[in-house]
Amino acid sequence: MTQTEYIVGVDVGGTWTRALLFETSAKAIEKIREQVDTSCDMAISDQIIKMIYNLCKRNGIAVSSLKGIGIASAGPLDSKKGLLIKPPNLPFDYVPLVEPIKQKLNVPTFLINDCAAAVLSEKEFGGGKGIKNLFYVTISTGIGSGIIIDDRLLLGEKGIAAEIGHVTVLPDGPMCGCGRRGHLEALASGTAIARWVKDKLAQGAVSTLPQNQTITTEMIANAAKSGDTLSTAALERAGRLIGQALANLLHIFNPTAIIIGGGVSQSGAILLEPMQAAMKEYTLSPSYLDNLILTRAAFGDEVGLVGALALGRSRYPYTKHNHD
Amino acid sequence: MTQTEYIVGVDVGGTWTRALLFETSAKAIEKIREQVDTSCDMAISDQIIKMIYNLCKRNGIAVSSLKGIGIASAGPLDSKKGLLIKPPNLPFDYVPLVEPIKQKLNVPTFLINDCAAAVLSEKEFGGGKGIKNLFYVTISTGIGSGIIIDDRLLLGEKGIAAEIGHVTVLPDGPMCGCGRRGHLEALASGTAIARWVKDKLAQGAVSTLPQNQTITTEMIANAAKSGDTLSTAALERAGRLIGQALANLLHIFNPTAIIIGGGVSQSGAILLEPMQAAMKEYTLSPSYLDNLILTRAAFGDEVGLVGALALGRSRYPYTKHNHD
Repeated sequence: MTQTEYIVGVDVGGTWTRALLFETSAKAIEKIREQVDTSCDMAISDQIIKMIYNLCKRNGIAVSSLKGIGIASAGPLDSKKGLLIKPPNLPFDYVPLVEPIKQKLNVPTFLINDCAAAVLSEKEFGGGKGIKNLFYVTISTGIGSGIIIDDRLLLGEKGIAAEIGHVTVLPDGPMCGCGRRGHLEALASGTAIARWVKDKLAQGAVSTLPQNQTITTEMIANAAKSGDTLSTAALERAGRLIGQALANLLHIFNPTAIIIGGGVSQSGAILLEPMQAAMKEYTLSPSYLDNLILTRAAFGDEVGLVGALALGRSRYPYTKHNHD
Repeated sequence: MTQTEYIVGVDVGGTWTRALLFETSAKAIEKIREQVDTSCDMAISDQIIKMIYNLCKRNGIAVSSLKGIGIASAGPLDSKKGLLIKPPNLPFDYVPLVEPIKQKLNVPTFLINDCAAAVLSEKEFGGGKGIKNLFYVTISTGIGSGIIIDDRLLLGEKGIAAEIGHVTVLPDGPMCGCGRRGHLEALASGTAIARWVKDKLAQGAVSTLPQNQTITTEMIANAAKSGDTLSTAALERAGRLIGQALANLLHIFNPTAIIIGGGVSQSGAILLEPMQAAMKEYTLSPSYLDNLILTRAAFGDEVGLVGALALGRSRYPYTKHNHD
């Protein structure tokens, strides 16, 4: 009889650190979560180590028998050095994660950002199964991507590749959170869509949306579905800009499949149809679109943990080039 | 004593087919060239086979002892299927190259486009030696690129990736040769620079350039060097647009090195300085530029043959994913 093997997936968020113990078969055993200690009494790495100890102890598993630990976190981070760069809510610039955990637990440990985790989750368990060239884009508060080329994760020289939210779409466009102008994220993210609507309302645009109240993209999507012209225009505009950026990425990567995730993509056809129209309009040749698989993400809130599992489990093929 | 091994590199151009017999050490033995038979009496594959036979015969080498044949050609082409798509000057849509040669000569044969050949030539023999993440861009009549990620050539699902000339830079910009608007090639290629200057002259712009005469980018570069304001403005404008596109590509690929080739890049600082300024201006974080190697291409006219040699010689590592 083969001995059951185990993996831990960890998702480091702005508020919660979540850890899930899996069998390598991907069967989930137990999930725990703890609030990120922003008081800084304990290093994140120590918090993760403690969580892993607890998970193992409660399930009668020796920590030393873990086959891998995958950690997903919001970026920016350095996958190669295994550290967080300016993590949200923490007053540090560089927080080492991988080395302290590896040293303490003696288990292979890997760190990637949440978009890379998302594309791995799709590749291993979702719509990207068996696909060698896979492009995942999330349209959420921000816009990010995870890219698999030839079965390997695109990380770049310093592990800071795949930042498609910061591709310039309109050179004279609005300022991006990063301080540059006209980036896709500044034009078509959830934040950007809400801001565009707010500006139009302030200019007196007619809409069924409430005045003088925080407008969310969910409210905009709902209003659009009920026929609100302003909300429809906002999502159509964002969809077209995303489609324009995706056309560029088709020319650059010629992927087999594009998977769209993130809360804003839940708006559905009102966003996705103009997106597809723009992709077609801006694409050099039908070859890029013929047989292209375009699908919605399989995972929602769990994507970080699932991707961390995929990373912890596979380890070698996706990120080999970073650990040669 | 080890037996000397041989490779043939073939460069299929619009006018000439050139073939060069190399030792695998990269020592050139003999080069021959023949005009492409546009009368179509002979298939290109047969012409190449004949040239390889002749090269081998004259040098006392058995064709069967060749270790590889690398073929570079202007695109569009399909590397995976080994065929040319709409080759210049030929009235065919799909011209098989690899299969007929492999069948006749029984030598491993590989086909890539000229930009892919260029990046391989740099990777194997030029400024890209030892660099795992390499971005080659050529600024010539058109704009193209060859991309190495993690020591492997980026080809995409159908072998039509890396078309950075067809990335949208100005959504409402001028029409591209491909029929879409605002692509980098339509704004900053040699053709685009000359057209911009011609339009300005027609509008009465003051310049030392001759009126009513074909204007080449070489003339524009020379005039700019002599202080012509219009020519300087044309190259600065193109340089900035290229820099903007390269900033996007830094965010997407996070390469170790960018190598700039092609005739227009010979314009030097007048083009490259605004390019670098725009790269800096449009880049999210200095991390993308710190330690980035930015250099000029090592090869000129020979780049196709040198790249074909690199392909024929290495075969396996660069394009393994296409021949699994």
